[in-house]
Amino acid sequence: MPYTAAETGAFVRSFTIAPTGSGQLERLIFAVKDLIDISGQKTGFGNPRWQETHPPAAASAICVEQLLAAGATCIGKTITEELAYSLIGENHFYGTPLNCKAPDRVPGGSSSGSASAVACGIADFALGTDTGGSVRVPASNCGIWGLRPTHGLVSVAGVCTLSPSFDTVGVLAAGVDVLERAALVLLSAKRSQEDQPAAIHFLREAFDVCDPEVAAALQNPLRILQERFGNRVRNTSIREIDQEKEATGLGNWYEIYKVLQRAEAWNSLGSWIEAEKPELGSMIAESIELAKNLDRSLVPSIKDRKEDYYRRMNAFLGPRDLLCIPTVCSPAPLKGTVRKRDQAGKGYYVRVLSLTSIAGAARLPQISMPLGDVGGAPVGLSLLARSNEDAFLLAVARSIF
Amino acid sequence: MPYTAAETGAFVRSFTIAPTGSGQLERLIFAVKDLIDISGQKTGFGNPRWQETHPPAAASAICVEQLLAAGATCIGKTITEELAYSLIGENHFYGTPLNCKAPDRVPGGSSSGSASAVACGIADFALGTDTGGSVRVPASNCGIWGLRPTHGLVSVAGVCTLSPSFDTVGVLAAGVDVLERAALVLLSAKRSQEDQPAAIHFLREAFDVCDPEVAAALQNPLRILQERFGNRVRNTSIREIDQEKEATGLGNWYEIYKVLQRAEAWNSLGSWIEAEKPELGSMIAESIELAKNLDRSLVPSIKDRKEDYYRRMNAFLGPRDLLCIPTVCSPAPLKGTVRKRDQAGKGYYVRVLSLTSIAGAARLPQISMPLGDVGGAPVGLSLLARSNEDAFLLAVARSIF
Repeated sequence: MPYTAAETGAFVRSFTIAPTGSGQLERLIFAVKDLIDISGQKTGFGNPRWQETHPPAAASAICVEQLLAAGATCIGKTITEELAYSLIGENHFYGTPLNCKAPDRVPGGSSSGSASAVACGIADFALGTDTGGSVRVPASNCGIWGLRPTHGLVSVAGVCTLSPSFDTVGVLAAGVDVLERAALVLLSAKRSQEDQPAAIHFLREAFDVCDPEVAAALQNPLRILQERFGNRVRNTSIREIDQEKEATGLGNWYEIYKVLQRAEAWNSLGSWIEAEKPELGSMIAESIELAKNLDRSLVPSIKDRKEDYYRRMNAFLGPRDLLCIPTVCSPAPLKGTVRKRDQAGKGYYVRVLSLTSIAGAARLPQISMPLGDVGGAPVGLSLLARSNEDAFLLAVARSIF
Repeated sequence: MPYTAAETGAFVRSFTIAPTGSGQLERLIFAVKDLIDISGQKTGFGNPRWQETHPPAAASAICVEQLLAAGATCIGKTITEELAYSLIGENHFYGTPLNCKAPDRVPGGSSSGSASAVACGIADFALGTDTGGSVRVPASNCGIWGLRPTHGLVSVAGVCTLSPSFDTVGVLAAGVDVLERAALVLLSAKRSQEDQPAAIHFLREAFDVCDPEVAAALQNPLRILQERFGNRVRNTSIREIDQEKEATGLGNWYEIYKVLQRAEAWNSLGSWIEAEKPELGSMIAESIELAKNLDRSLVPSIKDRKEDYYRRMNAFLGPRDLLCIPTVCSPAPLKGTVRKRDQAGKGYYVRVLSLTSIAGAARLPQISMPLGDVGGAPVGLSLLARSNEDAFLLAVARSIF
């Protein structure tokens, strides 16, 4: 192991919980994002005031119990961005977990500590959560694998709530084999025997929104897909999926995500924020203000657009069809450069969320694969499947890379 | 209006919130179960200590905002069973809302006040929540229509959590037309043009578990279905759906519901219960004890069985296939007779949950239709559809009855 847990700065607490059973995760060790309950411990949610104002967890989250029962050992709680509300990964109170493949860059958030612990070799895999990219973005930034499952398939009991229409429990791992094994336990699914996609759609606008260096860095894995699947690989456009006249970019899906997520985040956190007036880091304070000041009259029609888009996407994608996009638009920002959302440069925040909101708004599973490199900084390529086809998606990824 | 709101005992608070828009719910008035947030008000969750220990809601729940935007007027908050944790409807602190069609009987819970307000003509429709039957059972008991939607399709932001793998926001109404209109707003769906089922499966074991008087009371609507749909009506058995060897009754699905719901309820409520030690009514205290003392080593394999059953049920039901079952096994218990779960007689609690857990464990939408009468006490007949076919289910129900 090249790093100690302390050197990574990934953990809020180290401990050992032995497996409660045996199974496909035997001899694997995992870490848990500190917004997921461990029995008897306080769950921090990345903010000291949250920890002070909430009692210890009465039980471990269902997802933790599943992993322990399958034979895995839990080694600690990892840093989360405050209230899971940032994709950067520089927690104002608890610091910035090491991005060991690109140490001058942020790990990404909000599952920053989980990604760091896995990338640095401290844990075989880790639990994260993903509302708007919080598993996928740090997986991409840190050069590891990450899965956001189909919304609703993995229990969120015992997990802090940000935006329930988007919140999922996901997993991060250094390799696809461990990722698949851990994810199948969480999904209560068997390994898929089927690993041949009917079609793989490269989504043009998703590559267009990227930095040219990111698109270039992903050419090699795209070529592998093309060689492997020949005429099952297709170029597609948003216009084929989302047949609204104005659908000329990723903006529609980003707008859906942005409005509904802010509305629900204020539903979930607003009363606590107003009652406690907690100190917040500058990025988080800004996001909370945006949630608080949202024009909520937008919400009902945005919810209609979300469900319409969900139905369209799941009609566009036939059984075993995949969508292929870059996970992020740019490599991870340099550390200490992002104190406000727009400081990340070239619309980083909006562009990343444009990509991550595709799965979010349509309840699709998405796997981020560590297949690109931009001057030493990792970037991920993503495959997305139809809702509920998580096991198939994992099998395809395993069979290719 | 035959009753005043005060006479029904259904409300914890009356007020008027004007519509914020216009649409298909214009001129309709609705009530909101008091575990769903209204901006600026404290949400009681049926327990005084809960209300004391939680700040006012910072925003209204998404589902409330949708209804107001579609032109409906909100007239108040209705009594919920404590912590949504009973199907009886006799709140220890706030009393028993009137079951106006059977005044000597309980309204059913946990959406007791919402069902009462609608049945007594105070509201055109009402929001409820349904984890293990909390919309369907009071709808059946009070002789009105109720919909439990597909899990995950209606936003639960701003709604108190009991067991997130089962929690849904549903709706109750006196007629199917209003039920459909309100539900379509919540579901962000259009009225389905398709109203012809491919098949309607009468589930034998579900009728077998009922009191003979209930099965007899439902013969007439069953006959109507048979006359209308001829050879598309089929008799089926659990053995055709759930091909486990031991599947000889509803027990498997009830067991799945029971264990996972208790586990998740303790995840959601345990830390607050342990920290506050609130006074609880006797039924609720018993349920909380069962949740606290659950053997949690059962949870991972139960979660596996749930997902296995979900996949089997959604494979058994083809597109536009329906399942037909009684909503409940018995008419509503007489008031004041149920202080413990097993006092309801003849295993009432277990038998009702056996029926309601079919939709719960498989994420199916279910509509309860007020089509039966046992000596003056209403009982409902239910249709269930495939996950996501909610609009179709509503259209079928509207076209028949």
